[in-house]
Amino acid sequence: MFEENPLEKIGQEAQKASWKLAETNTAQRNQLLEKIADKLNANIEPILSANQKDLQTAKDGGMSPALMDRLLLNTERIKSIIADIKTVIGLNDPIGEIIDSKKLDNGLELMRRRVPLGVIGAIYEARPNVTIDIVSLCLKTANAVILRGGKETINTNLTLVSLIHQALEECKLTKNIVQYIDNPDRKLINSLVRLDKYVSMIIPRGGQKLQEFCQENATIPVITGGIGVCHIFVDKSANQEKAIEIIINAKTQRPSTCNTLETLLVHKDIADPFISNLSHALKRQQVTLHISPEVKQFLPEDGAAFVEVKKEDYSKEWLSLDLNLKLVSNLNEAIDHIRACGTQHSEAILTNDTKQADIFISQVDAAAVYVNASTRFTDGAQFGLGSEIAVSTQKLHARGPMGLEALTSYKWIAYGDYTTRA
Amino acid sequence: MFEENPLEKIGQEAQKASWKLAETNTAQRNQLLEKIADKLNANIEPILSANQKDLQTAKDGGMSPALMDRLLLNTERIKSIIADIKTVIGLNDPIGEIIDSKKLDNGLELMRRRVPLGVIGAIYEARPNVTIDIVSLCLKTANAVILRGGKETINTNLTLVSLIHQALEECKLTKNIVQYIDNPDRKLINSLVRLDKYVSMIIPRGGQKLQEFCQENATIPVITGGIGVCHIFVDKSANQEKAIEIIINAKTQRPSTCNTLETLLVHKDIADPFISNLSHALKRQQVTLHISPEVKQFLPEDGAAFVEVKKEDYSKEWLSLDLNLKLVSNLNEAIDHIRACGTQHSEAILTNDTKQADIFISQVDAAAVYVNASTRFTDGAQFGLGSEIAVSTQKLHARGPMGLEALTSYKWIAYGDYTTRA
Repeated sequence: MFEENPLEKIGQEAQKASWKLAETNTAQRNQLLEKIADKLNANIEPILSANQKDLQTAKDGGMSPALMDRLLLNTERIKSIIADIKTVIGLNDPIGEIIDSKKLDNGLELMRRRVPLGVIGAIYEARPNVTIDIVSLCLKTANAVILRGGKETINTNLTLVSLIHQALEECKLTKNIVQYIDNPDRKLINSLVRLDKYVSMIIPRGGQKLQEFCQENATIPVITGGIGVCHIFVDKSANQEKAIEIIINAKTQRPSTCNTLETLLVHKDIADPFISNLSHALKRQQVTLHISPEVKQFLPEDGAAFVEVKKEDYSKEWLSLDLNLKLVSNLNEAIDHIRACGTQHSEAILTNDTKQADIFISQVDAAAVYVNASTRFTDGAQFGLGSEIAVSTQKLHARGPMGLEALTSYKWIAYGDYTTRA
Repeated sequence: MFEENPLEKIGQEAQKASWKLAETNTAQRNQLLEKIADKLNANIEPILSANQKDLQTAKDGGMSPALMDRLLLNTERIKSIIADIKTVIGLNDPIGEIIDSKKLDNGLELMRRRVPLGVIGAIYEARPNVTIDIVSLCLKTANAVILRGGKETINTNLTLVSLIHQALEECKLTKNIVQYIDNPDRKLINSLVRLDKYVSMIIPRGGQKLQEFCQENATIPVITGGIGVCHIFVDKSANQEKAIEIIINAKTQRPSTCNTLETLLVHKDIADPFISNLSHALKRQQVTLHISPEVKQFLPEDGAAFVEVKKEDYSKEWLSLDLNLKLVSNLNEAIDHIRACGTQHSEAILTNDTKQADIFISQVDAAAVYVNASTRFTDGAQFGLGSEIAVSTQKLHARGPMGLEALTSYKWIAYGDYTTRA
């Protein structure tokens, strides 16, 4: 307990840097982001060559092509990262905003002003674009950041961070505003999440194990999220043809994402012929069904492949072309299933009955609840936030896609005329 | 890690109860609060007699009169608790409020709706009115709550909770909406803060040790706060006579509270005669000064008592008629001192120079920042929130006095017309 935290100095420097950053205005911070975009644009070659090193190491280590693709940068992807920075530049800056203000009876003028959180710690894996995503959202909102990326991307990330440092220096700002932990020792994650004297928020962007580790060990508030066991309930009043389109979209548009459909709940009254039609449509998309026993009788022989579902499958984030399928007797049964197996991420009801929709909306506890829409929309860009730093599935501070506002706190400010409390 | 949490069942029941409670409307919840007020009113005698038991045990155990006074209920105090319930009934219910809504280009109607957090865990000490404060704010916002009060108040608390249970039952609601952990085993605090499957937020209302314990051991987001090492900086342009009134108010109006002034920073240019005048005024209030060496030359012989300050005193929450006093050369030195020793609670500048005020406001990082006002205003009732569940000194979710809004989260709701993502 009295051992010094090996990241103490990094935390201290980050906090000091955050104070300096907080003195900049919106125009200066946008200028800094422009500078970073320019640096990336002027250094595509060095970035790609650093990325090649990471890819080679990954290949030598036997990484799967799918994972290697997440690692890969090319000119087009870098251009798209630069475009994302420009999007953030174009967003409204929440810092300094007055949330509400009032004059109290005693004459005090009281208001809440949006301020940066201070220092944010981000732990993430694989994709190098995340480095720039996080940095641009943090800088826009005047937050310093301590980054801890995956070791697979170390060369790419260090190149990106050195370009960010160049931009900071050219803007006469300390490079401690963006610090990167390059020591691969996993113990340092534990050190990072215990820097509560300096860091206001930890964002673990990674799998369940990372999230649980942070929840278990952090002394700093952690934003958990990004794990999505998402459901669609097809009510008996739903338009069945359109329901099939939604299901295809939610399952197959990009199966590896957290807002992908994993379990479909169908009202038993429409099992015939809905299940059969659906099965044919899913076959064309090469989806494999994991069915509860009572579904079998409704499945056509020439439809989608299927296996019997195991109980634990209902809590699984497939992230693949697999789909659990279960019949339910009514809305309540669907809600009970979602309460038992969901991860409070994204849940949808397909219905033409507004009463059923209202009940679903109020009783299903999730970051995003949909009526007659695909679960795939839970995303900062789709929701008009411009970008997102994470998708929160917890309830404190921010829920769902986290944009700029989620990177702010507020302070109460009161102006008096030498006012004392009676 | 795989041991069953001894509070598992309590957590589970609380979550189920929270789902039921979430189905009630504002009128029903206000009715429930009315019923609780009625029960208290009709049972003043049994409450007082339970309180007598606690007082007797406290006396036998040698509790100090000051602490016993915190424990004490009398008819007047119960009436005042009942009045507080009525205040909460009169407050606007934030649940169901639409925070923002927009129609996206693809036709999706997107909005955020305020919802209860679900289940709240509250750990607190001594004062029995806190039980009713927490319960009424939680019930108003449709949150279930698990209470863990101090063992000194156990008889009073159990009587209060049994009256709340009667009210719940008469309103046809499950009494699991308000559960009380009556087992005095301190290990159960550790169990409570690890019920992350069921509980959304932990509020530890107590001293630094309790706060640190929760930060260290909780797997649920914790709201830390309530520790206030508050400062006032008297700038050279301040109205010195009025400054003294503010200092007296901030230090002596109720010294045992967290928003009380603990360290006074005075611009050296006004040390003479300000320090001398102040010292005379503080003497009348029986304040003892803890001074840095350079202050001594300005102190009159017939002024307030003083001792030399120790370095660690600057980080101490005196909660008594003691006051640290230090000279600073300028605003920056004051800000540096506050950054080093403050607890981000309440900080004030007294100045007639708006530029200095602006710098102080933006550079001092605290829940509440005051210009020409006493720090004593940081309080839910004073800020017009009606009441408060705690005063947060962290930056996530809620900062400063936490009223009803701080007991809510939101969900994203999207209505489509069988809308798919392109």
